[in-house]
Amino acid sequence: MTDDSTDLVAYDHLAPGEVGIVAPHDFVYAKPFTFKSGQTLPGFTLRYETYGALNATRDNAILICHALSGDHHCAGLHTPEDRKPGWWNNLIGPGKAVDTDRFYVVCANVLGGCQGSTGPSSTNPATNRPYGVGFPFVTILDMVNAQKILLDHLGVSELHAVIGGSMGGMQALLFAIEFPSYTRRIVAMATTAREGAQAIAFNEVGRQAIVQDPDWNRGDYAKGAGPRVGLAIARMMAHITYVSDASMDRKFGRRKKSEAAANGYNFEVQFEVEGYLRHQGQSFINRFDANSYLYITRALDHFDLPQAYGSLEAAFAPVQADTLVVGFTSDWLFPPEQNRAIAIALLRAGKRASYAELATDLGHDSFLLESEELYALIRGFLESKVSPVDFTI
Amino acid sequence: MTDDSTDLVAYDHLAPGEVGIVAPHDFVYAKPFTFKSGQTLPGFTLRYETYGALNATRDNAILICHALSGDHHCAGLHTPEDRKPGWWNNLIGPGKAVDTDRFYVVCANVLGGCQGSTGPSSTNPATNRPYGVGFPFVTILDMVNAQKILLDHLGVSELHAVIGGSMGGMQALLFAIEFPSYTRRIVAMATTAREGAQAIAFNEVGRQAIVQDPDWNRGDYAKGAGPRVGLAIARMMAHITYVSDASMDRKFGRRKKSEAAANGYNFEVQFEVEGYLRHQGQSFINRFDANSYLYITRALDHFDLPQAYGSLEAAFAPVQADTLVVGFTSDWLFPPEQNRAIAIALLRAGKRASYAELATDLGHDSFLLESEELYALIRGFLESKVSPVDFTI
Repeated sequence: MTDDSTDLVAYDHLAPGEVGIVAPHDFVYAKPFTFKSGQTLPGFTLRYETYGALNATRDNAILICHALSGDHHCAGLHTPEDRKPGWWNNLIGPGKAVDTDRFYVVCANVLGGCQGSTGPSSTNPATNRPYGVGFPFVTILDMVNAQKILLDHLGVSELHAVIGGSMGGMQALLFAIEFPSYTRRIVAMATTAREGAQAIAFNEVGRQAIVQDPDWNRGDYAKGAGPRVGLAIARMMAHITYVSDASMDRKFGRRKKSEAAANGYNFEVQFEVEGYLRHQGQSFINRFDANSYLYITRALDHFDLPQAYGSLEAAFAPVQADTLVVGFTSDWLFPPEQNRAIAIALLRAGKRASYAELATDLGHDSFLLESEELYALIRGFLESKVSPVDFTI
Repeated sequence: MTDDSTDLVAYDHLAPGEVGIVAPHDFVYAKPFTFKSGQTLPGFTLRYETYGALNATRDNAILICHALSGDHHCAGLHTPEDRKPGWWNNLIGPGKAVDTDRFYVVCANVLGGCQGSTGPSSTNPATNRPYGVGFPFVTILDMVNAQKILLDHLGVSELHAVIGGSMGGMQALLFAIEFPSYTRRIVAMATTAREGAQAIAFNEVGRQAIVQDPDWNRGDYAKGAGPRVGLAIARMMAHITYVSDASMDRKFGRRKKSEAAANGYNFEVQFEVEGYLRHQGQSFINRFDANSYLYITRALDHFDLPQAYGSLEAAFAPVQADTLVVGFTSDWLFPPEQNRAIAIALLRAGKRASYAELATDLGHDSFLLESEELYALIRGFLESKVSPVDFTI
C-alpha cells in the first residue's frame, strides 16, 4: 500500500528491461455513471498509463490495480530527472515478470482517488468547488466498473490478466466475478475476501484522526489545504500495519537519532523509527487528499464478498479465470490465512486456483518489494497455456 | 493495559472471595527524590491500596504493578454502588490466586501517573500550576524506586512477590534486579526486556496525535482540559494493539450498528467495532491525563535492560528471586518470544526461572482476563516453598 516505502534504487531509463519515459493519459467518460449506492455522476475521468502495445487480437492486456495509496504510475519515469520510477517498476518492464515486450499493461488511478481520476477533490461542476463529502460513496465494485469502461475504450477484447495486491487484489477478484468471460487470469496478493474487524478498526482510527482535525471542516477545504495533521497521523499509523515488527527492528531497532536527543528526555524525535514515521506522514500529506482517504478506507471496510454474494463459493461461481493467490507469512494486515481462504473457496467452487505462501519478514508491503521468488511465480502463471493444477494448503 | 476492556461482571462485595469495600490512601514522601535523569522533586505522593494484613515477620507482602493506563485500584469496590471492581479483581481476593487471607497486597499508582500519584498533572508548588512538560522525565526505574520507598514506609521487610503484566512486568523485573535481597519472587507477564521498534512506533503515533492537537498547547492546560481529541485517538489506536484480530472478529466481526447506518454510506459509526473503539477513546479522556500519557509511553520507549546493564544476562546477574514469566500466544505487542527471552536470559545467568506460554486468542490483554490456567500457575508459584525447576522452551 505504500509506494514510498520502496527504497530508491539506481534507475537508468534507457537501460534494457526498463519501460523508460512514460506519460499519463486522461480518459474522459462523458456519460452518466451509477455507483453501487445508486448515486450518479454525469461522467468521470480516469488517469492511466499504458506500457507495451495491444496486439492485433486485442487480448494481451494486463490490468494492474493499485492499493489504497497507490496510483496509475506503476513503471518508468515521467521525466529523466525523476528520482523514483513507478511503484511496481521492479515487476513491470521489457523482459521482466510482467513483460511489456509481450503484454499491454494498463494501470489507472481508481475512481474516488486523488491522482488525476475523479474523486472527492475533483471540482463539482454544479458548485465549482471540490465535491468533498458530497462525492458519491465509492465501493471497490465502482472502481472496477470504471476500469472496465476504460478497458473497453482502449479496445481491449479480453484481459490476459488482472494483477493487484491489497486493495488491488480485491479489484482483481471482482474482475473475475463480474466480468468472467473477459478475465482469463487474476493474481491476488496480500489481500482478503472480507475486511476483518481489526482492519476496519485501524481504518476507523485513521478516519477519526482526519475528521477530528479542525481543518477537515466537514470535508470542505480548498484543494491542497485540508486536515494535514490528521492525515499525517492516519498515515503514520497505517504505515506500521504495512510493515512488520521484525522488519522495523532490523531497519531501525532502538537506534537513536543522536546521543544528545536520546538523553534529552523530551517528546521530540529520539529514535530513528520516529523520524522515519514522521517522514512517512509528512510526505503523504503532500500527495494525498484526506477526503479520498476517507472514501477509499470506507470502500475497503465495505468489501465483503461472502456478504455481497451470499457466500464466498457463491461469489466465485461465475469465475472462469485461472487464479493465483499469494500470501506473505509476515503480513498481519491481511494475513496468509485470509489469502489461503480465497484459493480454498475457488477450489470448492470448482475453479482453477493456486495458492503460494511466501516466507518474508517484510509484512504486508512484501508484495511491492524485490522478490525473485514472486517474480518467478507471476512470470510462470502469466505464461501458462494450461491451467495450474498444483494446489497445496 | 486496559482495565476497562474487562466486561462488567456481577460483583457482590459481601461475597466470600471478595475483598469488599476498599479505600485508597495517599503516601506523602516529603524528602527530595532524584530521578534517573538527574532531575529532582522536593517530594512526591503515591496513591495506593492494600488488601489483607502484613504479618508479624512483615514478609508476606505482594506488590502489584499496573500497566500504562492502570491505577492503584486493582481489587474490590470503593462504594457499594460502584459498577466495576478493581482491574485485577478476578485474581486478587480471599482464597483467590493472590490470596488476601495469606498475603498483604499493595498496589500504587505509578510516579508520573494521574490517578492520585504525583505526575505532570500535579500542581507545581513553585508556579501553582500543573507541572505539564516541566515535570521531570520519568523512567520505569523511577517508578520502581518510588514504590520501594512506599514499601519501606509500610514496614514491609521483604516482598513475597512482585506481579505485573506489560509495563507492570517491566517493574517486576527491575525489582528483582535493583532490590535482589528484598524480592523473593517475581511474576512478569506479557512484557519485554526491551521495547522494540514497532512498540515505539505505536507509542510515537499516539504522542503525535496528542502533541499536534492544538489543545495540548505545549503541555500547558488546566486540569481536566487538554487535548481530548488527540488523547482519544491515541487510545483508540493503542487499544487495537491490546487485543487481537481473532478476538475482535469474534466480538464484533463485521456486524453493523444498524442496517440504516450500514446503508448510509457515511463516515459515522457503521460497524460495531467502530462504536466500541470510540467508546474506548471517550471513556479514556475522562480518566487520563494527556501529559501522563506522553511521559509514561516515553518511559516504555526507554526501557531497555540489555542497554542499561550491558546485556540481559548482566542485568540479571544480581537477581535472587524466583521468576515466573508468562507469555500469551496471541500477544503481538509483546509477543511470546520476547517473554521467553527473559526466562532464557535468567537461566543463562544461573537464576531460577520458569516460562509458561498460554494459548489464548485475546491478545496482549490476556493477562487481565479470566483464565483458570493463569490463576493455577500464579497460585502454585506463590505457594512454592522451593524454587521451580521445570523449564521448557
